[in-house]
Amino acid sequence: MIYGRVALIGLGLIASSMAHAMRAGGLAGEIVGYAKSAETRAVAKELFCDRVCDTAAEAVAGADLVVLAVPVGAMGAIAAEIGPHLKPGATVTDVGSVKQAVVDAVAPHLPAGVHFIPGHPMAGTEYSGPRSGFATLYQNRWWLLTPAEECDAQALARLRQLIEAMGAKVDTMDVAHHDLVVAVVSHVPHAIAYTMVGVADHMRRVSQSEVIKYSAAGFRDFTRIAASDPTMWRDVFLTNKDAVLDILGRFAEELFVLQRAIRMGDGEHLHAYFTRTRAIRRGIIEAGQDTAAPDFGRAPPPAKEG
Amino acid sequence: MIYGRVALIGLGLIASSMAHAMRAGGLAGEIVGYAKSAETRAVAKELFCDRVCDTAAEAVAGADLVVLAVPVGAMGAIAAEIGPHLKPGATVTDVGSVKQAVVDAVAPHLPAGVHFIPGHPMAGTEYSGPRSGFATLYQNRWWLLTPAEECDAQALARLRQLIEAMGAKVDTMDVAHHDLVVAVVSHVPHAIAYTMVGVADHMRRVSQSEVIKYSAAGFRDFTRIAASDPTMWRDVFLTNKDAVLDILGRFAEELFVLQRAIRMGDGEHLHAYFTRTRAIRRGIIEAGQDTAAPDFGRAPPPAKEG
Repeated sequence: MIYGRVALIGLGLIASSMAHAMRAGGLAGEIVGYAKSAETRAVAKELFCDRVCDTAAEAVAGADLVVLAVPVGAMGAIAAEIGPHLKPGATVTDVGSVKQAVVDAVAPHLPAGVHFIPGHPMAGTEYSGPRSGFATLYQNRWWLLTPAEECDAQALARLRQLIEAMGAKVDTMDVAHHDLVVAVVSHVPHAIAYTMVGVADHMRRVSQSEVIKYSAAGFRDFTRIAASDPTMWRDVFLTNKDAVLDILGRFAEELFVLQRAIRMGDGEHLHAYFTRTRAIRRGIIEAGQDTAAPDFGRAPPPAKEG
Repeated sequence: MIYGRVALIGLGLIASSMAHAMRAGGLAGEIVGYAKSAETRAVAKELFCDRVCDTAAEAVAGADLVVLAVPVGAMGAIAAEIGPHLKPGATVTDVGSVKQAVVDAVAPHLPAGVHFIPGHPMAGTEYSGPRSGFATLYQNRWWLLTPAEECDAQALARLRQLIEAMGAKVDTMDVAHHDLVVAVVSHVPHAIAYTMVGVADHMRRVSQSEVIKYSAAGFRDFTRIAASDPTMWRDVFLTNKDAVLDILGRFAEELFVLQRAIRMGDGEHLHAYFTRTRAIRRGIIEAGQDTAAPDFGRAPPPAKEG
């Protein structure tokens, strides 16, 4: 057992997967949960929480670890509510996809003697809600921590121990660097996927049924990403605005260069560009970050008449 | 047996998968192959061709069905070479991802009495070459045919029979409509994926090793698409220029609207947009065009130390 009592604030995919993993490993003495919705609380009580509370303040009372697993935009209000009720010496972490905005929103509300260690598990699926969690979500995935320089070393080591016991790999980095890295590897890819799906949705000459019918040609990969939780992603884009706009600007430039090469019929440019990007895929497979199986080893869709 | 002799011109992923499927189903009396590279011919002879020839002209002699499976940019020269050697009454099809350019390049070289039925199997993986093919590639996938109005009904029915026997579903459509549909569901998604991977490749502040290390956050889905065959994709963009530029233009507009919403902090717009795009994913799963398993049911990558 790594923590006596763990309080999960917010009970969606991330928190429920943590609860399943902590239960499977015997990592927490008691798992207490809180979510805004009574329905979510009932599901959590049934599936993965030892106890649920009607308020966040109650849920954090006596907890050794408090995990803020609500959308980034809701972190500040929750922190203000729980601040006075935190146990001295407790650790507070969060699982938000951006870190500067969370630090700004949460840190002012935490009393001295409480250790705040911002975190970001880089794991998820396109599903959300308390029924979508599973114990192996964090297996072999990265979990980034962005502790302040003055962070208590013992508190950090203990949190790292919990995360590693759930199967994840921990890296620590600077808050600002984190926000830029995730803008490149996650936020802008999501923005682009949402946009491409939006374009297809608007097309008049190509009916939506054709777009769906023939989606396996590449488009369907985008739709999986674009099916992610809307509230979470709204908050990501509102709170990591600077890094996202920076990378989106670069993307637009790059796209115009490609577009120009297509318009000018510059085959040499296109071939060289498409060859270079291939190497990155190889790097990802060699680094063990994705399967080498064709088409992700994706299970074939069920046979259906078109 | 549906055709006595089938000639495959070009022996990459698509042709080799056809050969494997035809062999598995006993659909062709003899499978003859030709490819530019001697090495490819040797692999084909070993793995899936009954006979390989040193020239395309030899390969098509006496064939009842000729399949042009070379990059779109190479179709015209091949058609000019084989035209005089085609058997009267033979059917010629191709597997190019664009159709107008192929019709323009190929049709003028075919003698009267030969049936030309342009085709496009909407199946593939990020791998290429004669060793990448497998018999089930076409199972439950769409194979579009774009026959001219005056196309021979019997020749069309026979080709359709072969394709369905390989496990695919056939739709016929107009050449121009085909090129627009695939621009939306395939060509522009590929252009965008290549561009996003290119942006990541250029980033100075985020090292390439970080991009690879943390790619599972969404970016790795793009890299799979961007690992596709560079020659094939160069030709796609050069030959489906008008439709691709049309859709890319719409994409850029749409992206700027999203970018503006992020800059203005318009959370309502973002939330509504991200909710709408979710419905398309549901439609694709309901239509049996993708797996509902989280993360594509993707096999977990091998455990490795970071």
